[in-house]
Order: sequence, then structure tokens, then C-alpha cells
Amino acid sequence: MVQRTVFFISDQTGVTAETLGHSLLTQFPDLEFRRVTVPFVDNEARAHDLKAKIDAAAEKDEERPIVFSSLVHGPLREIIRTADGLYLDIFDALVGALETELSTKASYAAGRAHGMSDTETYMKRIEATNFALANDDGGMTRDYEQADVILLGVSRSGKTPTCLYLALQYGIFAANFPLTDDEFESGKLPDKLMTNRKKLFGLTITPRRLQQIRRERRSAGKYASAQQVNFELRTAERLFQKFRIPFVDTTEFSIEEIASRILETTGVERRVAP
Amino acid sequence: MVQRTVFFISDQTGVTAETLGHSLLTQFPDLEFRRVTVPFVDNEARAHDLKAKIDAAAEKDEERPIVFSSLVHGPLREIIRTADGLYLDIFDALVGALETELSTKASYAAGRAHGMSDTETYMKRIEATNFALANDDGGMTRDYEQADVILLGVSRSGKTPTCLYLALQYGIFAANFPLTDDEFESGKLPDKLMTNRKKLFGLTITPRRLQQIRRERRSAGKYASAQQVNFELRTAERLFQKFRIPFVDTTEFSIEEIASRILETTGVERRVAP
Repeated sequence: MVQRTVFFISDQTGVTAETLGHSLLTQFPDLEFRRVTVPFVDNEARAHDLKAKIDAAAEKDEERPIVFSSLVHGPLREIIRTADGLYLDIFDALVGALETELSTKASYAAGRAHGMSDTETYMKRIEATNFALANDDGGMTRDYEQADVILLGVSRSGKTPTCLYLALQYGIFAANFPLTDDEFESGKLPDKLMTNRKKLFGLTITPRRLQQIRRERRSAGKYASAQQVNFELRTAERLFQKFRIPFVDTTEFSIEEIASRILETTGVERRVAP
Repeated sequence: MVQRTVFFISDQTGVTAETLGHSLLTQFPDLEFRRVTVPFVDNEARAHDLKAKIDAAAEKDEERPIVFSSLVHGPLREIIRTADGLYLDIFDALVGALETELSTKASYAAGRAHGMSDTETYMKRIEATNFALANDDGGMTRDYEQADVILLGVSRSGKTPTCLYLALQYGIFAANFPLTDDEFESGKLPDKLMTNRKKLFGLTITPRRLQQIRRERRSAGKYASAQQVNFELRTAERLFQKFRIPFVDTTEFSIEEIASRILETTGVERRVAP
């Protein structure tokens, strides 16, 4: 089968072109694509280089590439349009409808959707990341008063990456607390958590999957045994139910999905715009 | 001025609708928007709730909202289309051209662009995140052999958030090493870095901005003084030049832009698809 080359191109980071293009390609699950991102196409020399790359891929594949473009600068778009590819402009399709609706002309300035148009936004994301790092894994007294949300779960249920994603993507202050024998044996949660009970959110996972993840980390011993994993997960879920803590099974979810579910369930407000 | 409400809606996380919608709205820099994301619109009850929300916003704003939708399920789309908003379907515009080009019908199955279609992808992102956490801030002997890239820079130049973003977004193994008096005084880099010299990438920043960031952390003392900040940055840049380490000034950049520049400059391959 011919494998098409797909280019995601942008005068900025390429994140928008990648995100939309990737979503569209999932609508063609039986086809395979070779993906190439080319960011910062912001002058004519780079545009000509890119045109040559697209032409070369067309020749090699014997099929013209698909080009998802978020370029806004007219002369650069014209150069790429002459390349041997299907040029899909991700803005053109919708900008006209927006202009009419808003009675305003689009600026056609390079977008900087992922640019630091706002220093405050950058600082908030950094602060939130530092908060997640400082409030990872419960041990010492933590700053739960400042937290927007506190994730609970057994070791390797996905707490840390989720907290970091919430921080980087949404500027949310997310702490996490690992459930261990202390909680399993007492059936209680520490006072510092109980006083912030409304911020608690649980993560769970299937025993099978947790075993798989723990084995990759430390293959031998009790830690990844079926018995231990079953015990921990069963007891953790009982704690969630006892204290009416909302929780989600992360087994089939990506980090984006876990984060979206948390926002949706808790109503926590993001601190930075999407 | 009327503030329009903008809805980003999806049967999945809403990341695609948000990303594209946000990029488009940056083309109208003089207007202000109130942004609402509604993920997981995956059944008729939720679609009717959402329609009611859109109608309520239209009434309150006295202008109909703008709705960026990545819904793929026909009946749900039909419900939202009857709401009092401008319905912009981010797929419709391009799916036809893709179907023709690929001689394949789109599946119109809920996309899961950010779903865990691939367990391996999830594991790689988690592993990369753990690597970034374990290899943060240089102190002990680190696992630089496994690293894809090693970021160098003075304290608070953005190393840690950038490493975490590279891990979560791209599955890249990114370590970081803080430049301190040891390097400034000797004019040398540790052997463990020199043996991985091709992986090194520097971050720098303007003195003014670094002072601002450091002051937020610790307002008094030498750490945030103009003299100290100037000395550190000047010496760090000299080290980058001496050892021919590519570097980027992060002052005007978002985390996405810093990450894209690193990929672009080093040619490091991402380990997971966009």
C-alpha cells in the first residue's frame, strides 16, 4: 500500500496544523501516513525549501502529499500552493464565515496562537508546573490550601503526569497524594486532605493494566503481584466511595482525556485560555 | 463592547476544537471573547443540555455565540445546529477534499484524536515524563546516555517546564542541567556533558526578564540582583559559543515555541505522533 506523506506547516509552531490534521486523519483509520511537521516557515527562502521537500516527497511516494497549512502570509502561501501537493488551508475554510458574523476583517497577521502574547499566561503555566512538582507525592506537609485539585490514587495510577499536564495546558494548580498502607489499614484519609475534601479527585485503573505498568518499573516482588495490585485498587475504590470522592478509571484514557474528565467533573476553572 | 461567547464542543476532549478555534480568534485581535469548552458531548441528553446553554448565552449576550464543533455523530450535530449560534464545523470544510484525494470515505466515527488508541504511545509519554523528572537539575549522576536532548541554562531560564512539555507532548527524553558557579568559574562543562555534547541545547533569556522571574520566587538577595543576573547570562552565553552549543532566547517565547525551536534546530525525532 502506498504510504502518503502528510505535511503540517506553519509560520509558528505547527501545533494547530498538527492538531487539526491529526484529527482529520483519524477519520481514515485504514490508511497509513508519514507525518512531517515544518514549523517557522516565516520567510521566502524557507518556503522555497519546503516546496522542494513537498515535491521530493511527491516524486518518491508517487502520490502527491497532503499539506495542512496554517500559513497566513499571502506570498508564502502562494509559494507552497505551487508545490506538488494537496494544499489544505485550515483557516480559509472558516475565516470568511467568521468575518461576516463578526463584521470585522481578519488581520491575517501571523497568529502566535501558541506565542507568548501574554507574559502573564506564561508565568501562570510556569507557576502551576512548579506547584505540581513541589506538591507531588504527598510525603511532607503540602500546600493544599493553594491547590485547585488534589489527585488521589495508588502508585502508578497516572497522578504525576496528569498533574503536570493540568499545569502546562491549563495553568491549574494540581497536587497529588499517593494512597498507601497508611490509608488502606486505617480506612482514613489524613486531616490535611479531609480539610480540603472538595478538591479531592480519585484515579483508578484496572488491575491487569496496573500490573503491566508496575512490571515495567520493577519486575519482581510484591509491588507488581496480582494479589497486591488487586488489594490496593479495591481498597482505594472503597475509600473513594466512602468519602464520596469522584473518580475516573484511566485504563482506556489518554492524559488529555483524564485531564478533560477532571475539569468536566469538578468544574475547576482553567487559569489560562486554551 | 459586546463580548461574544465562543463554544468549543466535542464528543471527545475538545482539544482539537479549542486549538483551531483559538488560532482563528487570534485573527480578530481587537475583539474579546468569553470561551467555554464543552467536552464529551456523546449522547442526546448532553447535546440538548448544550443547545440550552448556547441559547441562554445568545439571550444574555444579545448576540448569538460562535460554536466551533468537532462533533462527528450526525444526530448530535443536528441537535446543536438548531441552537441559536453560528455553527462552525471544523471537519466538514476539509473532509470532502480529503475523501476525494484519498479515494476513501471518512469513517465519521468519534475521532479519539486524543484518545489512547495506542497503549504504547501512552507508555512512552509516561516514561518520558518520568525521565524528565528523574533527570531534572543535574545534581547527581544522570542518565544522559538515554537522553534525546539535554537542556542547559541558568536557574529559572525555563529548563524544567520545557523538558516536561517535550516529554508529555512528544515523548522525548529530555534532561536538564543548571549552569552554576562551577561552570562559570572553570569555563568548563562536566565530562558527563562533554561526552554527550551533540545532545546539548542552551536556553537563554534577557537579564530584565530573568530578574522579574527570580524576584517572584525570592525577592531579596543576590539571586535576583541585576549584577548577578547579568553575570550569569553573559557567562552562560559565552559557554554556549565556546562549545558551539545551539541556543535560543526564550524571552518572547511560549513553552510550545521553545519546544518547536528545539525540535527544529536539533532534528531530534519525536517518539509519539502529534
